[in-house]
Amino acid sequence: MANVGLKNSDTFSDILDVAEHLFRQIGHQKTTVADIARELHMSPANIYRFFTTKGEINEAVAGRLLAEVETGIRKIANSPRSAGVRLREVILKVEKLNSDRFRSDRKLHDLLERTYNERWPIMDTHLEAVDRELVHIVSGGMTAGEFRQGVPQTAAILVRNACLRFLHPRFVVECAEDPEPTADQMVDFCLSALA
Amino acid sequence: MANVGLKNSDTFSDILDVAEHLFRQIGHQKTTVADIARELHMSPANIYRFFTTKGEINEAVAGRLLAEVETGIRKIANSPRSAGVRLREVILKVEKLNSDRFRSDRKLHDLLERTYNERWPIMDTHLEAVDRELVHIVSGGMTAGEFRQGVPQTAAILVRNACLRFLHPRFVVECAEDPEPTADQMVDFCLSALA
Repeated sequence: MANVGLKNSDTFSDILDVAEHLFRQIGHQKTTVADIARELHMSPANIYRFFTTKGEINEAVAGRLLAEVETGIRKIANSPRSAGVRLREVILKVEKLNSDRFRSDRKLHDLLERTYNERWPIMDTHLEAVDRELVHIVSGGMTAGEFRQGVPQTAAILVRNACLRFLHPRFVVECAEDPEPTADQMVDFCLSALA
Repeated sequence: MANVGLKNSDTFSDILDVAEHLFRQIGHQKTTVADIARELHMSPANIYRFFTTKGEINEAVAGRLLAEVETGIRKIANSPRSAGVRLREVILKVEKLNSDRFRSDRKLHDLLERTYNERWPIMDTHLEAVDRELVHIVSGGMTAGEFRQGVPQTAAILVRNACLRFLHPRFVVECAEDPEPTADQMVDFCLSALA
């Protein structure tokens, strides 16, 4: 666990900025703590005040990327539109973030794919955050009579799983050549299931 | 490509039987052509008459396992029951095959996971076969008025993608601890979408 007491210091976020920059350029596996220290004109020992291992830096950079995704989703979930419109926008948003990152920032995409593949703890936290926003949308849709009654938690998990192909970084790779289903088709399918 | 002219010979299937046995015991990555030859009391050169590389043996063993899955699905798809019942049975069947293999034959599961992860050509053939049976069920359901009208191909691909978590070997690993959704819940969700 990174030293959370120092989490709000400028140095803490400088380290993550530089790490993210290097991960983008040469990949998280080739980036060493010495590389990050050199770029920041500090000693590796100083970095170890903040992060006990290189693995913690990987996790913190991935966690920041996932937090950006969550912020985007939360903004959509709280916007004053119908549940169906917000659900669609959330799925399309995450799909776009994944496929843009896959196309333009392959090395950063690799880090996130690993986060999923190895199911790092931050991934569970992330999935819980995504589910929370999906539950918010679905339960709103149920209250408004837009969706039929049911257990919002279960419905939200079903939607997330049905859309796995668009939300999971691995499938952006594995299904890159598959024309169908599109994210829009899958959202239509989910909306029919919820209606 | 394995020497298809020799595909129906006894030696061809003996090689695959022994390879599958060894893959189960020590894994496909540790099994060498020499190991297979030794077990069959033949020379490695004789095996190379049938398979040019070890990779071809991996692929042929995986292909045989996938063909068994396809046979199981085809039998269900052609049984004289409602489309909804058959659809549920297909998804539950593949899910069970995957999770049984994961629990009892982890090393064979690894081979299939690799087939998916690296998207070997036999995987595309397999997915096409699965889609064909799903299309058969869905179009039957549409004709019978059990499902609403639509394009059966698209509907079948949507169902397969919505159920990815149960059909893809990787997720049997990644979601082993997740209690929800169950395969039954996901099938209910799909049937609502198709109704």
